Amino acid sequence: MNIALSQLNYIIGDIEGNTSKILAAIAKAKEAQVDIIVFSELAICGYPPKDLLDYPSFIERCEIGLDRIRKETRGIAALVGGPAWSGLEKGKKLYNSAFFFADEKLLKRIDKTLLPTYDIFEEYRYFQPNETFECVDYKGERIAVTICEDLWNLDQEKLYKVTPMDELYSQNPSVMINLSGSPYSYNHVEKRRKRMQLNAKNYNLPLFYVNQVGGNTDILFDGGSMFINRMGEIVEECEFYKEDFKVIKWDSNHIYKDNHQDYYDYDIGLIHDALVMGVRDYFAKVGFKNAVLGSSGGIDSAVVHAIAAEALGAENVKAITMPSEYSSSGSVDDAKKLAENLGSPFSNIAINDVFDSLNDTLTDEFTGTEPNVTEENLQARSRGIILMAYSNKFGNMVLNTSNKSESAVGYSTLYGDMCGGLSVIGDLYKEQVYDLARFVNRYGEVIPYEIINKEPSAELRPDQKDSDSLPPYPILDKILFHYIEEKKGWKEIVAMNEEELDEAVVRKIVRMVDRNEYKRFQASPTLRISHKAFGAGRRMPVVARYNH
Amino acid sequence: MNIALSQLNYIIGDIEGNTSKILAAIAKAKEAQVDIIVFSELAICGYPPKDLLDYPSFIERCEIGLDRIRKETRGIAALVGGPAWSGLEKGKKLYNSAFFFADEKLLKRIDKTLLPTYDIFEEYRYFQPNETFECVDYKGERIAVTICEDLWNLDQEKLYKVTPMDELYSQNPSVMINLSGSPYSYNHVEKRRKRMQLNAKNYNLPLFYVNQVGGNTDILFDGGSMFINRMGEIVEECEFYKEDFKVIKWDSNHIYKDNHQDYYDYDIGLIHDALVMGVRDYFAKVGFKNAVLGSSGGIDSAVVHAIAAEALGAENVKAITMPSEYSSSGSVDDAKKLAENLGSPFSNIAINDVFDSLNDTLTDEFTGTEPNVTEENLQARSRGIILMAYSNKFGNMVLNTSNKSESAVGYSTLYGDMCGGLSVIGDLYKEQVYDLARFVNRYGEVIPYEIINKEPSAELRPDQKDSDSLPPYPILDKILFHYIEEKKGWKEIVAMNEEELDEAVVRKIVRMVDRNEYKRFQASPTLRISHKAFGAGRRMPVVARYNH
Repeated sequence: MNIALSQLNYIIGDIEGNTSKILAAIAKAKEAQVDIIVFSELAICGYPPKDLLDYPSFIERCEIGLDRIRKETRGIAALVGGPAWSGLEKGKKLYNSAFFFADEKLLKRIDKTLLPTYDIFEEYRYFQPNETFECVDYKGERIAVTICEDLWNLDQEKLYKVTPMDELYSQNPSVMINLSGSPYSYNHVEKRRKRMQLNAKNYNLPLFYVNQVGGNTDILFDGGSMFINRMGEIVEECEFYKEDFKVIKWDSNHIYKDNHQDYYDYDIGLIHDALVMGVRDYFAKVGFKNAVLGSSGGIDSAVVHAIAAEALGAENVKAITMPSEYSSSGSVDDAKKLAENLGSPFSNIAINDVFDSLNDTLTDEFTGTEPNVTEENLQARSRGIILMAYSNKFGNMVLNTSNKSESAVGYSTLYGDMCGGLSVIGDLYKEQVYDLARFVNRYGEVIPYEIINKEPSAELRPDQKDSDSLPPYPILDKILFHYIEEKKGWKEIVAMNEEELDEAVVRKIVRMVDRNEYKRFQASPTLRISHKAFGAGRRMPVVARYNH
Repeated sequence: MNIALSQLNYIIGDIEGNTSKILAAIAKAKEAQVDIIVFSELAICGYPPKDLLDYPSFIERCEIGLDRIRKETRGIAALVGGPAWSGLEKGKKLYNSAFFFADEKLLKRIDKTLLPTYDIFEEYRYFQPNETFECVDYKGERIAVTICEDLWNLDQEKLYKVTPMDELYSQNPSVMINLSGSPYSYNHVEKRRKRMQLNAKNYNLPLFYVNQVGGNTDILFDGGSMFINRMGEIVEECEFYKEDFKVIKWDSNHIYKDNHQDYYDYDIGLIHDALVMGVRDYFAKVGFKNAVLGSSGGIDSAVVHAIAAEALGAENVKAITMPSEYSSSGSVDDAKKLAENLGSPFSNIAINDVFDSLNDTLTDEFTGTEPNVTEENLQARSRGIILMAYSNKFGNMVLNTSNKSESAVGYSTLYGDMCGGLSVIGDLYKEQVYDLARFVNRYGEVIPYEIINKEPSAELRPDQKDSDSLPPYPILDKILFHYIEEKKGWKEIVAMNEEELDEAVVRKIVRMVDRNEYKRFQASPTLRISHKAFGAGRRMPVVARYNH
């Protein structure tokens, strides 16, 4: 039996476009004598469609797309993900389903049982969980079809009372197929492989696993669809971050050799590739070609510039350096050198006049007050307004250059350096930004070494250094990781007795994270690379009184 | 038997503060010879605690608070909402529970069965649904305790397969108690009453229903706790928008008379009161006293100014008018007159110099281009930067003055008029803003009639009117309501054959709504008064291709 893994990059809501992609893959599969071609979860509409699912007209259009696909399955079977009306009198209106089409008929519809509703996932918002289990018989094989999370309730981490594959196993299936929509995070690639391998071993069944690929706003799908044999060895694995199509000549009695690519848990190269795909797809899917960013001569904007240049072409990324009286001349030179190294257009637009006119305009109102953070923010906002004007005039999207450490403690200015349509490195702690800079320079200097080696500073007042008001980044990042990713309270962090994590510092940082929820509420979408990113994955009350 | 309804305004995460409030109410209840005092859902931590529930240390602190409460129940029973560890090997870690304390003991813990996960609700994100049902026997009564949504699965709208009260009813209870966290929306007050009355009638049982009150960021809880007799009549009803404490001398054989307050479905007075509470609580709970807003002389900022003055005191609301060369002199005069009518501090800060310096600074970069929306946005952003500077310098929070019609079609400038810590009227369509203005003026002119009667204009270019590029607001609002609240697709809206809703206009507006998802993503929290507000209640993909 020939089974094809069809790993595609869908545009959410573009049902006609997605249908065409799926039909093209089916045509290709027919030529390759494929018996069953497998697509990913909710392929017809792209994953996650979010509240588009609340529109009955949206579901109807999905049905039309699915019906077009059904009609193209003469001589082949296709497994396609899509929403389905539940028809229930009691319960939610929709299922998250896999449509098993064969020879122009719907052979069976399989509904998803386990609905992830945590972190970025909110499937129980839309779907009714399935409660009945039946394998599909096709061409002499008995196929256990499941959808994504359905294969994750095993081992130590049982979030659900039912394990769908246990139910299906009692019907003696000969093979498993899983339609997935499984996003990337830097510790998820290996975890996903291991759990799928565990499924194959547990049930002593081969597994065909198909994921989607591509960036959908903040959520990055890495692909990595695979065929795992009954020994739990990964025999075939699709490309990461690219569309792919693999035909597996499968014989249920054959033993295959492990053949998977070497990617590991925390791999800065994978993070790099994820961000490049995220930028590329965000622009492509909204129809933008050009970016603009504020290039300060610091490490954050340098890394964003390099990523954007790779994603969009350096010539399509405009860098603007906007010095103030507090900017060092080195900063301007470094930003310029970076643009030259990359080959990007570059401008130097001093903000002094705008800053002065703002101060003049506010003189009467501010009589009798002392300069404070207000004036620092005026600088950041002058820069923001210039970038946005450039964006409005020429149609370049502004890239935000904040990192996760800054966002966490609110070391950023609303409507100033928080401007932008997309945050590229907003899910990377400062130490990870340095890792990424070194990765960018792996074949030689792209980001000038001066930028990597200088001490971080916002340059908003004379001789300012980040370390004036924050602990050194290795300490800061450690506290933030414990608090955000590991969900430890301040007492637990202090109790870990790690070096330099004393109570006063930990409490201060944790409070800063809480207090700045209101800023992050208005942040741009942020490419997600960790398992706990700011944004849809971390939903905190803005008004709360907790770590006081 | 004396049962007390304790309707309190909690601060999310302030477990110690909430515990103290609960203890004070218990002390008061003891004095009043109360047998059972009832608090609302998740009272210990305030509702909704969101991802604070992911922190084990948070749950432990809730447990400590609950234990303090237990110890104060000598001679009384108290029903308090709080999270509880499920202890399950398979399933989620938490229940959303009601703790029935009596005489210093936990008599019973009741766990919530139906977990709303739609619109603003995301309870299945955190909680395991209960599957066992048992009444509580106390002082000769058999009490059916349920939590909020548990009483909503009846009649035509059955979202769930189980109806908890059906299960409990088989045990012959003598009374129902429901702990609720039910937010306000303008069509929810009457709906909530009707459904609770239906429960009482259906089961022929009296119902004690306790809701929380107060604004929690965007979500407004209106209170309205009640006692309904077995005939389905509302015998007692707590205040709306205020803390309240009512002792009901209840005799299960007695027949009571209907006594509820007259509030109706769409009541602009209720919307007004909801917004006033929302502003007051947002400020009080984050510790701010003063607001600042841009007062353009238009209807939106006028209404926001009036609401804020009522919530915070007019003297605590600074109004700044920021004319440009395109502002009519009438606008400045109207804004000034409004501030005088209300008694608020007022400044006139012209933006011409800032605008000119921005244009000068960008001259080289913009050589060869024509003025367009860029320059309009520069004006809006100059105003935003001035308001934020005022906020930074004096500690006044900026109030956003956008309305829902504008947000919907993106008729607003990111980092310009979209600035602000809180959007006050962002869930009111333009026509509703006018309703509200008339309500504010119900006893005489507060908002100058000139403001109400002038034609809406952004005044960003000569002789600009909103109607230049948008259909008249009554038409626009109607299309938006069909699309957003009623979730009709453009074809359905056109098919309604309503006057002036022709295909070209409908498609254009629907596309504008979709295309501006990226702007709303960065909007401030918005006080929610409808059943489908932008923000947490409507989760659309930013990058999508749907209504093309």
